Amino acid sequence: MRATVSVPGKVSLFGEHAIVFGEPALVAAIGKRLTISAEERSDRAVRINAMDLHVPGVILTFTEDSPELTVETDYGHMVGAVGYVREAIEAASEHLGSRLGVNITIRSEMPVGAGLGTSAAVSVGTVAAYSILAGHQLPLGEIASLAHKTELRVQNIASPMDTSVATYGGVLYIRPTSPTHIERLQVACELPFVIGYVERESRTSELVKKVRDLRESYAEIISPILQSIGRITERAKAALAEEDLPTLGRLMNINHGLLDSLGVSTKALNDMVYSARFAGAVGSKMTGAGGGGCMIALCPGKELEVSTAIKVVGGCPFRAPLSCEGLRVESVEK
Amino acid sequence: MRATVSVPGKVSLFGEHAIVFGEPALVAAIGKRLTISAEERSDRAVRINAMDLHVPGVILTFTEDSPELTVETDYGHMVGAVGYVREAIEAASEHLGSRLGVNITIRSEMPVGAGLGTSAAVSVGTVAAYSILAGHQLPLGEIASLAHKTELRVQNIASPMDTSVATYGGVLYIRPTSPTHIERLQVACELPFVIGYVERESRTSELVKKVRDLRESYAEIISPILQSIGRITERAKAALAEEDLPTLGRLMNINHGLLDSLGVSTKALNDMVYSARFAGAVGSKMTGAGGGGCMIALCPGKELEVSTAIKVVGGCPFRAPLSCEGLRVESVEK
Repeated sequence: MRATVSVPGKVSLFGEHAIVFGEPALVAAIGKRLTISAEERSDRAVRINAMDLHVPGVILTFTEDSPELTVETDYGHMVGAVGYVREAIEAASEHLGSRLGVNITIRSEMPVGAGLGTSAAVSVGTVAAYSILAGHQLPLGEIASLAHKTELRVQNIASPMDTSVATYGGVLYIRPTSPTHIERLQVACELPFVIGYVERESRTSELVKKVRDLRESYAEIISPILQSIGRITERAKAALAEEDLPTLGRLMNINHGLLDSLGVSTKALNDMVYSARFAGAVGSKMTGAGGGGCMIALCPGKELEVSTAIKVVGGCPFRAPLSCEGLRVESVEK
Repeated sequence: MRATVSVPGKVSLFGEHAIVFGEPALVAAIGKRLTISAEERSDRAVRINAMDLHVPGVILTFTEDSPELTVETDYGHMVGAVGYVREAIEAASEHLGSRLGVNITIRSEMPVGAGLGTSAAVSVGTVAAYSILAGHQLPLGEIASLAHKTELRVQNIASPMDTSVATYGGVLYIRPTSPTHIERLQVACELPFVIGYVERESRTSELVKKVRDLRESYAEIISPILQSIGRITERAKAALAEEDLPTLGRLMNINHGLLDSLGVSTKALNDMVYSARFAGAVGSKMTGAGGGGCMIALCPGKELEVSTAIKVVGGCPFRAPLSCEGLRVESVEK
């Protein structure tokens, strides 16, 4: 039996980092997807086959009996993805009360580890495909929750934002109350975004820790910044509903500066962010955890100019309109 | 009779823009000076001779009877300086109750209109030199106050920060209460700063208005940012007293991001700020009103590397240690 699902990447529109401290965030699924196939094995091993992940393909096998497998290779990002597959299978197995041997094949239209939520997409896709193999088509809420648990296990700290948007698609307004408040907004899913990508220099977990440390050392300075980011998100939610692109752009610019003040942006990200504005974007900001990775530019009618500007400063641009579609079961072959 | 005074330039260390909204700021005099000579004339005309202002020298004459003089030339920054000379003479004349004809000659070691407080230096220097000619060696407090009045008349909005530091020198902690609280800090005046300069694209008054408008439109977002800047200033005051350079550097980086979020930084400023960090500065930020102009980098032992990095991205670097000396009477010739 073989189950194939696909999951969208995401961009964080507003509120990254601040969401870790209780502020709301807006995230959006994009029209670039990650595909995961799960195929039953006769033994209880797990074999992971990762293709097109912008790193050379790599095949790794581990079994339940040697859980401490560590892989020493140059495939930095890929090894990261393996951890998510493994924990996702673990989490799903516990939830379903059964453990299967499985071959997992991953293909991606997006760069991995670039802040486009590929680890969440891997988690969501693995949970979904593996569950189908195990005979369960889980409700979306359970899939999102297991995928979030997966991220928590791998990263120690994780917001439910990435796994939610990978599961549900569209634009989500998320408030990390307990339980998490998630609201799917009614918005135009074809907002004209260009994404710029550069290599990352830091890991998400390091960056989250960096902000946490900064907030601990300079609480009276950092807390108002996080609060301001939360309020930007609220304003942006209203502006999205009205499709008020100039306001969205202004809010993106403010949010970018605040992320820069938290020390999570880089020279390469800032180069892309400012070049995009120079080329006519109504707003631009880094997106995701930072330390390199991606920026987004809202640039109606200026997609070509902004893409060129991003290229000029050494980034890799691609157009990625917002997408309303979340987790999708592509095929189930007996 | 001829009176010659010199006045230091300044950099804003922390708190620019936020001070307009009641937050405290830290400003420091630098080891680059502007020299103003005032020479008595037999008539009641005012003749201004501006030299070395990084614009071609220009000589303008106006009299009390044609106060509406407007000058249409390309000497953008210089024409600005003329306005300050004129209003400074006006303010001093009112205060002293007498009006003299005078030749004013200005020389500067700094670029004009670059956020180094040259307009304040012109105001302070003109008030001081003109008063000496008129037979009065005014107390520093009165000179600072008349110079601030001068800036208010020219710009409509002005903090007393630039005129105070030009008058008193050293590092000043300023809280814009009524009356303004000004505290001269006991600090090492040789802190190793490198300044980077690029052409300005916007005027101070436009930038102050931009922040005011932004705050009006997005009060709940912008107010916490201004508050955070104020708290950075308080932390920095303590760090300065302890000569804790790593903390000062971190606070500069946070402050820069917040200024960026207010929309007053530019791509050229950010290029210099990030290049300086890359080259080993412990902290860097834009300084002054923004829209181009200057950035400062705190870079103990890395002055050469940081200067080079600033040059590489198209800026003009110069070393400017903090200076303890304010207004200085250079000579009075009968």
